[in-house]
This record gives sequence, C-alpha cells and structure tokens, in this order.
Amino acid sequence: MPSISINDLQFAARFEGITGSAIREIFKLIAQPGMISFAGGNPSAAMLEDALIADIARDVLLRDGKRILQYGGTEGWPALREQVSAFLAGLGVAAAPEAILPTTGSTQGLDLLLKALVNPGDTVLAENPSFLGAFQAMRLYPARIVPVATDADGVIPEALEEAIRAHRPKLIYLIPTFQNPTGVTLTLERRKAVAALAAKYGVPLSEDDPYRDLRYRGEALPPIHSFDDSGFVVYLISFSKLIAPGMRVGAVTAPPALLRKLTIGKQSADTHMDQLAQAIVAEYLARGLLPGHLETLRSLYGAQLSRMLAHLDGMGLAHTVPEGGLFIWAKLPEGMDALQVLEKAVERRVAFVPGTHFYADGGHPEAFRLNFSNSSLEQIDQGMAALAETLRG
Amino acid sequence: MPSISINDLQFAARFEGITGSAIREIFKLIAQPGMISFAGGNPSAAMLEDALIADIARDVLLRDGKRILQYGGTEGWPALREQVSAFLAGLGVAAAPEAILPTTGSTQGLDLLLKALVNPGDTVLAENPSFLGAFQAMRLYPARIVPVATDADGVIPEALEEAIRAHRPKLIYLIPTFQNPTGVTLTLERRKAVAALAAKYGVPLSEDDPYRDLRYRGEALPPIHSFDDSGFVVYLISFSKLIAPGMRVGAVTAPPALLRKLTIGKQSADTHMDQLAQAIVAEYLARGLLPGHLETLRSLYGAQLSRMLAHLDGMGLAHTVPEGGLFIWAKLPEGMDALQVLEKAVERRVAFVPGTHFYADGGHPEAFRLNFSNSSLEQIDQGMAALAETLRG
Repeated sequence: MPSISINDLQFAARFEGITGSAIREIFKLIAQPGMISFAGGNPSAAMLEDALIADIARDVLLRDGKRILQYGGTEGWPALREQVSAFLAGLGVAAAPEAILPTTGSTQGLDLLLKALVNPGDTVLAENPSFLGAFQAMRLYPARIVPVATDADGVIPEALEEAIRAHRPKLIYLIPTFQNPTGVTLTLERRKAVAALAAKYGVPLSEDDPYRDLRYRGEALPPIHSFDDSGFVVYLISFSKLIAPGMRVGAVTAPPALLRKLTIGKQSADTHMDQLAQAIVAEYLARGLLPGHLETLRSLYGAQLSRMLAHLDGMGLAHTVPEGGLFIWAKLPEGMDALQVLEKAVERRVAFVPGTHFYADGGHPEAFRLNFSNSSLEQIDQGMAALAETLRG
Repeated sequence: MPSISINDLQFAARFEGITGSAIREIFKLIAQPGMISFAGGNPSAAMLEDALIADIARDVLLRDGKRILQYGGTEGWPALREQVSAFLAGLGVAAAPEAILPTTGSTQGLDLLLKALVNPGDTVLAENPSFLGAFQAMRLYPARIVPVATDADGVIPEALEEAIRAHRPKLIYLIPTFQNPTGVTLTLERRKAVAALAAKYGVPLSEDDPYRDLRYRGEALPPIHSFDDSGFVVYLISFSKLIAPGMRVGAVTAPPALLRKLTIGKQSADTHMDQLAQAIVAEYLARGLLPGHLETLRSLYGAQLSRMLAHLDGMGLAHTVPEGGLFIWAKLPEGMDALQVLEKAVERRVAFVPGTHFYADGGHPEAFRLNFSNSSLEQIDQGMAALAETLRG
C-alpha cells in the first residue's frame, strides 16, 4: 500500500481557481503601523462606540442573560427581528418580524440565497464591476457569474433584461445604493425597471443595501424592494457599517417558502447566530440610538468624502462622485496598472484596492477603489499626497 | 408572457428531501410553559453564568472595544486562538494558534469541512446512529451518507475499514466521546485503530468532541487526534456545552492546506465571526475560570445522569450507561414506536427525541434519546414518572 500524504489531499471542485479574497489579503499587507489605508470598507474607529456597547452588553446580559446564553432559534433573536421589522418599515420595506432572518452580516444572507437557489453551473447576474466578496461566494457554489453593464446611473435595465433572456439566471445580485466598488446609486426609474424585470421573468433579485443610510447629500431613493409586489426582490441589510462590523449582525427578508430554505440552510451552517450580538443590536435600536449616530457618521464621512474628491480633482484623475457610502471609484492615467501602483504606494505607506478584482472577468488595470470612511481628514491629505507622489513616480 | 408566481420558485437540488432539523422542530413544540424537556442538548439554565459573562463582556469591550467592534480577520480573534491552543494542549492535541480556526459552534466546523472536501454525490461515513444535525449538513452538499455499525464500544473499526474500502469516502465523521445520541465512548484501542485507518487510507476524519470535558465517572481517554501523525484527523471543539451555547464559539484545527480551504470557505460564509463572543470566551479561558466551572457542571450533571438511569432501570427499559456527556439512549418495549409515544408524552408535558431521526437510513422506531443536563432532579423525577405513565398507556 503506498503511503498517502496529507499534502496530496484532494479538495472539492468548487475550490478550483479560488484563491481567497484579494481585499482580505491586502488587509494583512497593510496591517503595518503608520499605513494609511484607503483599502477595506472599515468604519472610522472613532465612530465605534465601545463604552456605550459595553454598557448595553452588560445591561442585556443582566436582564436577559439566561436566554441570551442558552441555545436559541435559527430564526433569530425575537427582539432583533422586531427591531429590524420596524427599521425596514422606515425604508419602505414591509416585512413582519416572522419574515426576517438575522444573518452574520449580509455576507451570510447572500451565501444562504446561493445555497437555496443555485445548482452547480447555474448563472448569477451581477453588476460589472461588483463586490469581490460576493463573487467569491458565488464561485464556491460554483455559479457562473455573468457581469451586466453599468453606467453612471447604475446597472442598465436593457442590459439586464438581455442577460436574463440569454442566460436564465437563478439569481440577480445588485448593490443599488452607493455601490461597492463604484459608489454609484441606481436611479429611481431604473429601480422600478429592475423590480419589474425580476417579477416579469421570475428571477430572485437580491438587493444588497448596507450603505443606504450613509447618505451625505442628495435625496434618499426607495429600495428596489418597495417597487416589488411579486416577492422576487429579496432585501439584505447589515448593521456593520451603521453600528459595528465586529458584531456581524445583518438580516434578510424574503417570502415564506424562500425564507424557510434560508433558515434550513442556516441550521446546517451554524445552528444559530450569537445571541449576544443580536441582543445588543436589538437594544441599540430599541433605545432609538441609531438616528443620532447616523447623523454623526454622515457629518464625519461626508467631510471625508469631499476632501478625497477634492484631492482626486487636484490630481486630475477621473472618478465617480458618490452621494454617500464608503467608496470612490477612480481611474489612473492611461497606461498605468493599479496592481503595480499599489506595490509602490505601499512603500509610501498608503494603500487602496486595485479595480481589476471587482470585475468578474478581470481586466481594467486602470481602475481602483478608494475608501474614505476609515481615514481622518489629515490622513486623507497625507495619503492622497503620497498617492500623488507615487503616480509622479 | 405567462405570469410567474413566487410560489413556483424552484430551489436548488440540494434541498430535495430536506425538511429541517427534527430536533429544532421539537424545540418549537416544547416551548410551552410547564413542559419538561428531555429533548434538546441544552445546558442547565442554572449553569449559565449571566452576571459573570456580563462583567467579562463589559471588561473586554472597555479594554479592547475598538478592535472588537471593527472588522477582523476570518482567521479569528487572536487571543481566542491562543487560548484554544492552550486548551487543546491540555487534551493532548498539539495545535499552534495559527493552526486553529474559530467557528460558529462545531456546526460550522463540520459545514466548512464538507465544503472543502465533498463534491455532490461523494460519500461521508458516520456512526449509525449519529447526530442528525450533522446528517442535514452532509445532505445539503449533497453527500451520500453511509452509516457504519457501532456497538457499546463505539464505531467498529473493522466495519469502518470495510466501508472505507467499499465507498472511498471523502470524510469520516465521528463523535468519539459520549456520543450524540448514544452517550457511548469509543475505547482506547479503537481510537488508535480509527486514527490508523484515516492515515492508511488517506481519508480525513473529523473528530467532533464537544462533550469530552463533561465526564462524571471513569477515566478520560485521549482524543483520536492524539494518535494521529498523518494530519488526516481534524479536531472539532465547542464551548457551547462548557460555557454557553448562545455565544456559538467553537474551533477546528487542521493541517495548513486544509485550514486554508476552511478559512476561504468561511470568508464567503460570514466574512468572520462576531468578535465580542470570541473575546469573551478568550477572556473566560485566560482568567482560568473553566476548570472550576467544569467541576460544578460535572457534579450537577453527574447527579442528574444517575437519577435518570435509576428511573430507566426502574421502568425496565434497556439503555446505555454513559460516563458523561448529555444523553442517554434507550429502547421502548418491543412493538412501541417512539414517534407515537412522543405525541402522547407531550400531552403529559414531557418530551424526548425519537431515535429514528438519528439513523441515516431511518427505522429503529423503538429507540429514543433522553437529555438529563437541562432538567433538575425534581424535573427528572416528574418527567420520568410522566413518561412511565405514558408507556403504561
């Protein structure tokens, strides 16, 4: 019998070509002190309310600790489902508590949707470019990702309809508000149009909307979900960008039969979510703390966005002009490659994410994504100056 | 164009025949006040240290809140990885912090292993009977489950070897200590034998060991992992039964290439785990609180186990005699069906889990599982009396 080495272990086919998130790898690269990071999508550390959360954690444990610490339902912490229901109502999304499944960030919401809907080799449609973490989740099913053209108004409905007809997708994945990576917001007319397409063709559309409350200018637009009567639009939210990413609390709302599949999928994935984080977020919302905190976030991040846009204009680089969110999408001068520029930029202690990672089909070496939430005005001045120097060579 | 209803939505093939965890459904059934539950695997509410955890939560947030509340690594909270490394060393499992991936309970550890190793239709070997939640996770890949014969000493190595040769499985799943559902512990010789089989045939063996520290009599046995030099034995632990299930903190240790796949799989599943729960468990372990707490648990649960065994003897029912854990496995008198008995028992305010759910291939209507950790001595007296009455008709 030949001896078998663990190094010869064969992994499942779904891992073929999967190398891990480029962003999470960049995180490690930039974990050095003194680095100014325009990479990640981290909230400002100053906006993380550690003392407040410490008090809330203690309060909920002293009040409900026996229940919080015991096994709970896969369906989620009841008070959180109620609070999310009220939160969604404020956005124009009608969802009873029973129609809501808390998830570990919206990441888990998408993963559970893929599990419920996608057979190996099925097609998922996504904006081009889109969130690379979502691509990785799709590829592990393994889904075929068909990118759909976008412009300054978001995904183009005609292109989406053509792709639906051509590819008969099992899921459409959109980030309509302050999109990751572009910062672009889908217009009102297009929101109505894509809701109608999901209904017309009977294709579930996952509306991933974690940034919508981070609006610094302009008028809020209703979610795509609010234009849908068919049930095919599934709404995903996250409190990661609004309260604290480290607690990983998000939620999904979907029609009963689909929600049941998501719940069964979650049973097998983790039995249920940590109930302490759920109880903390529920209490935070119940105390009415979110609106005031969002005002503070908007004021801070809005100023940081303006500052970064001014630097980009000063550098003469083409870029999107987001009205909110966490990201600006920009282009290097012709002939430059963001992967190469990043290497040199890191030597000057500034980092960003090369845009090619956000295209399902690669390419676009000139594009790059900048985050402005996690850097102070001074850091933005310093980092953008370092970036300008890098570009000058 | 025909109108398409959300009710006609087609789900992925992996959900065919999947109806959700029978135990989680029983949980809902028994959530009525006054019900004595020998179902679930819940710790005693009296053993959940809510005031202590409240203090620890506050302490870690006041000390490390900015880091806890920010995005973190998929690889897990560094202090938890260190504490788990030390904890495992105490069990004879050598694993550096970098070789450990914190997971949402051991449930997620198994799910990630399946994701890393199993293609649709591949075979997984499991004890017969075994944990039904694990079966559901396997079926969603979808894996073919081949049950392997067990006896009063645990899984039978000769049967395991035969099944390996016949089915070329991608994974072997064992719960060697105080097994769920039988309470049986794999003997020392068999631990060595199954470790050797995993190495000989190059098949990953997931050793799910959440109960091992809940030993009330007899001598602790080393994990299967401690007899493995090949790297094919993957060790899964959970602090759910030891500290608190509601925080969902477990961990897996595996060789580097496999751990990398688990980590990439986790990136897509949830980006990373709630860091507050990880930090609380790390601090609990760092303060050296676990040994004393385990003594208290053992004293309480040991007495409850003895009381329940005495009742079973008094009722003349065949049953296992576990030396620890949370479960006793028993048999109804010939001709009785546990599914039917459960319905009548619930009317008398006592519940258990019918054994058929724990057999991958069904059958065995006479078997049932009793939990003793979540009921006081008085509740055990009362509930077993109600069960005896139910059996008398």
